[in-house]
Amino acid sequence: MKIILIVAVMLSHSFGESIKSKYVETSLKIISKSLTDSTAYNRLGYMCDTFGPRLSGSKNLENAINWILKEMESDGFENVRGEKVAVPTWIRGKESATLLSPFKKELSMLGLGGSIATPRGGLKAEVIVVNDWDELESRSNEVPGKIVLFNAPFTSYGETVAYRYSGASAAAKHGAVASLIRSIGPWSMNTPHTGVMAYRDDVQKIPHAALTMEDAMMLSRIHDRNDKIIVKLDMNARMVADRWSHNVLGEIKGSIYPDEVVVVGGHIDSWDVGQGAQDDGGGCIASWEAVRLIQELGLKPKRTIRCVLWTNEENGGKGNKGYRDM
Amino acid sequence: MKIILIVAVMLSHSFGESIKSKYVETSLKIISKSLTDSTAYNRLGYMCDTFGPRLSGSKNLENAINWILKEMESDGFENVRGEKVAVPTWIRGKESATLLSPFKKELSMLGLGGSIATPRGGLKAEVIVVNDWDELESRSNEVPGKIVLFNAPFTSYGETVAYRYSGASAAAKHGAVASLIRSIGPWSMNTPHTGVMAYRDDVQKIPHAALTMEDAMMLSRIHDRNDKIIVKLDMNARMVADRWSHNVLGEIKGSIYPDEVVVVGGHIDSWDVGQGAQDDGGGCIASWEAVRLIQELGLKPKRTIRCVLWTNEENGGKGNKGYRDM
Repeated sequence: MKIILIVAVMLSHSFGESIKSKYVETSLKIISKSLTDSTAYNRLGYMCDTFGPRLSGSKNLENAINWILKEMESDGFENVRGEKVAVPTWIRGKESATLLSPFKKELSMLGLGGSIATPRGGLKAEVIVVNDWDELESRSNEVPGKIVLFNAPFTSYGETVAYRYSGASAAAKHGAVASLIRSIGPWSMNTPHTGVMAYRDDVQKIPHAALTMEDAMMLSRIHDRNDKIIVKLDMNARMVADRWSHNVLGEIKGSIYPDEVVVVGGHIDSWDVGQGAQDDGGGCIASWEAVRLIQELGLKPKRTIRCVLWTNEENGGKGNKGYRDM
Repeated sequence: MKIILIVAVMLSHSFGESIKSKYVETSLKIISKSLTDSTAYNRLGYMCDTFGPRLSGSKNLENAINWILKEMESDGFENVRGEKVAVPTWIRGKESATLLSPFKKELSMLGLGGSIATPRGGLKAEVIVVNDWDELESRSNEVPGKIVLFNAPFTSYGETVAYRYSGASAAAKHGAVASLIRSIGPWSMNTPHTGVMAYRDDVQKIPHAALTMEDAMMLSRIHDRNDKIIVKLDMNARMVADRWSHNVLGEIKGSIYPDEVVVVGGHIDSWDVGQGAQDDGGGCIASWEAVRLIQELGLKPKRTIRCVLWTNEENGGKGNKGYRDM
């Protein structure tokens, strides 16, 4: 067993060496070009500045996609096209959360992606603050008719995000009329943070929104002082019929194995309250730029290299499924 | 010379040692009490939560001051009193900045403390972006009729804050109709930052506001693309007549030298868009708590220890001048 392993390692090592020596010059050409060319940064800046947030179903997103298609054509990519994808369309609408008692204060908030609206005119209810799932369960008899605030301290995104994704149904199960979370993240400048949430099918849907870390901690302090907390929540969020969006594709055809495709890409949609420069504008532009540099340097890859910018990653994943089934 | 120095150091060292041995037990008593008592944190939380921002001239500030006076009385402090101080009163009013061209976008902004308003209904003008004073001077012929944006990268607070404090008059000198700065600070979550500014007497006053770092950098990118930038600025800020505020005083009377006063304190006012928990709520509460712990431990200082919470540090310094002249 040991001997086989050693032979395998030696083989893979020498195979690696031969690839390295064969492509070192080409790689360095690409790297040095990328280090002296600001096309990618300028395109990311232009896209984020000009088109703004790129939520699935929005005109902004399609404007950005149309601009990319035009630019890819002018880069000389082949088979540049937008593949139609029907995407779920959630519209935030006007929204607010106001602390009415023990004193009045506008709370910075963001409805969570997929949430339903409050009844027209908003809803007013007492708030119960819990720090985790266990506290919700142990105090479930206090929940009916109230707004549950999950003031869960951030541990990791993967762990704490459960309150955002599943908090509404967990609270509704015990009769809550709405649910709030402390924004998911390690720090804050009174900045609420949005993202996707979902409802269980077997529980009444209730509105679900994020407060800032600061305001959630403030409500928790008020709760600890045994003062009654009353909040008015007003959300006009709604799902409308699916709309058309597009996966963006552009490629360099392979010179020897054109049907073998190396795919690089990112997702072009973003949430509606930022420009998605990092998530995932940067990923999209970097993938696109990698292909463009190969093109501009006149390199002729054996296999097809395709850049795919998927739509609707944030709230539905319809872009990647559409590409899979294409 | 050397010998004298050595003797002085030895004397001061042995003097220091004797103070140390005399007070080590008392100090440890105070320290250990402070480490097991949450009064200070709870009071800071209560004050910030309940009274909100404490701008000079606001009802909030006087509410907080009145609460502190009552609490100091209940702590058993002596000579608890609010000393009247007339404070300049600046009121922000409604304000907004909207990018109209090359595309429409609401910009997060904060008027700077002391700024005048725009003409009623706001003003609309082309924006010229400069990175520093030198660029303003070298392009001064482009300034008349425009809004100057100082997109100065943050170096240190002391250095970069000059654009906030003096930017308006520097721009107005060349005929600008308003001035904007990139918020002073090392980082941002699209969070504008306010603070005090001032006008020169010999130059026309123009409105002066801060954009977020992100929006200032975006405008700078647009400027670099040679796109014309038009912004509508609408500010209703105004100075009204001075109002009464109060320096808060409370003390433990000295048992031997009551007229020798050790003063500890902070400033109780804050800007109007935060709760001033750190600047300077924390300083105030820590000073107050230091005196309270001495009181609660039944220690009898030889000299009077006085806690002073000065009003109006942020925009006028009338509190400290009032105390000096008391």
